[in-house]
Amino acid sequence: MQALRTFVNGTPSRVVGIEDRGLQYGDGLFETIAVAEGLPLLLQAHLIRLRAGAARLGLGPLPSDQELAREIDELCRGMPRGVAKLVVTRGEAGRGYRYDADAIPTRILSLWPWPAYVDAHRRNGIALRVCRLRLAHQPVLAGIKHLNRLEQVLARAEWRDEYQEGLMCDARGLVIEGTMSNVFAVVDGVLFTPDLGEAGVAGLLRESVLGCARDLGIDCRITPMTLDMLGSACELFMTNSIIGIWPVQSLEGRPYPVGPLTRRIQTELEKRRHVAISSQG
Amino acid sequence: MQALRTFVNGTPSRVVGIEDRGLQYGDGLFETIAVAEGLPLLLQAHLIRLRAGAARLGLGPLPSDQELAREIDELCRGMPRGVAKLVVTRGEAGRGYRYDADAIPTRILSLWPWPAYVDAHRRNGIALRVCRLRLAHQPVLAGIKHLNRLEQVLARAEWRDEYQEGLMCDARGLVIEGTMSNVFAVVDGVLFTPDLGEAGVAGLLRESVLGCARDLGIDCRITPMTLDMLGSACELFMTNSIIGIWPVQSLEGRPYPVGPLTRRIQTELEKRRHVAISSQG
Repeated sequence: MQALRTFVNGTPSRVVGIEDRGLQYGDGLFETIAVAEGLPLLLQAHLIRLRAGAARLGLGPLPSDQELAREIDELCRGMPRGVAKLVVTRGEAGRGYRYDADAIPTRILSLWPWPAYVDAHRRNGIALRVCRLRLAHQPVLAGIKHLNRLEQVLARAEWRDEYQEGLMCDARGLVIEGTMSNVFAVVDGVLFTPDLGEAGVAGLLRESVLGCARDLGIDCRITPMTLDMLGSACELFMTNSIIGIWPVQSLEGRPYPVGPLTRRIQTELEKRRHVAISSQG
Repeated sequence: MQALRTFVNGTPSRVVGIEDRGLQYGDGLFETIAVAEGLPLLLQAHLIRLRAGAARLGLGPLPSDQELAREIDELCRGMPRGVAKLVVTRGEAGRGYRYDADAIPTRILSLWPWPAYVDAHRRNGIALRVCRLRLAHQPVLAGIKHLNRLEQVLARAEWRDEYQEGLMCDARGLVIEGTMSNVFAVVDGVLFTPDLGEAGVAGLLRESVLGCARDLGIDCRITPMTLDMLGSACELFMTNSIIGIWPVQSLEGRPYPVGPLTRRIQTELEKRRHVAISSQG
């Protein structure tokens, strides 16, 4: 599968310089944006998170929101449904970890076809496993969507098609997230999601779900979570900007029903157009 | 500073595809090789470490050692003294962490000028600081020279020119390594270097130093090390393939003499041609 359309620094291109620090050190960030009817969804929220990550890493000056939005709109134009990916690196530099604070970041935009499997999993739910690989604690990088993703790559290599997502715990055994998604559990009517202060990516859909749930009067709590807590949950679901909400049908073989709270939040997210729904849906 | 000469997959080129997983996820490895009189030093050891890292990450098939050596020799030809960098990524792929086990790795070779500051620091020693950023524990990635280097990038950003290297500890406060080097301490005639089972890069020069020291009859120990232990050391030095051995002249202001054991090992490494010495030296 290849990208349908790509821009590097605003110009159609499929390549970057080998001296780019994104390639040399994973020195950068990314955003994955759902596209519906030619428009990027939750764009403002993606740009806010991008800038928060850029501030944390000390990246050089980025183009204005207007400029970035113009480029992303151009990328998505005419696409009924797809995935836009924005990578921003610290830019090109010489050898060595030290960087120049004025280095101009490289921005790489690519447009991808909509993944075919998303909708069926939204309806029917998925099989979830627990990954052996444990996430390291690095509070300096926790929460942001940076390009150092070897933990996720190696965790995803633990299985092939038997499951649709893998759950990652930290070294203490606390649940953090999925390899590409955040996790939620409903226990006694309360919606729980793990605290991400020491590891994990704070997904935009995680924010959307918390916002929707609070508006629906659902009690939400961000807290350290154990696997035992998931075992006592009556509903379980995974979220990201592309999949929206995937109900969990089974965790390591233990079955879960796709419950009413999961369906209520799914419906609310669709109503608010936080997720890309199919033209039939 | 730009690379003097570059090859991508054996062909002169300065670019890689934006879909390369090295750029998308830091999904790859690198080696930094000293070049002297047109030849890469310790090449066999670099290739052995590269293959060990490739096995750990599950990279696809690499060219033979002969093929890699031929390309690196061609890169270095005629260079009196310089730095060769080899980056190997998992290759190009679509979006998503999952990889194809048969994906053909991308290999990127670049040749750089010799850094001017190396020799003076070898003679006179350096000022070392302790970085605030703590290294995360990730045993799955510890030891190998992978492309997820944001910790080093952010640690190196803590100072400018006041020091020549920064020492990195883990979350428990144990000493692990420098941002770009390994650390050794001489305490009561014994040569100590930290255990790297949970964090850090096992540098080739670290191996060379341990080998030389043992041959010289010096007692060597690989063990967890505290900052207090460095405080009680009579000699301290940092190592990597390019700098060779840099004696530490001060650690956060506490002075250290450049001691006899450091000088003995420096001389031995030069005699064995494990480091690139200046034509005057």
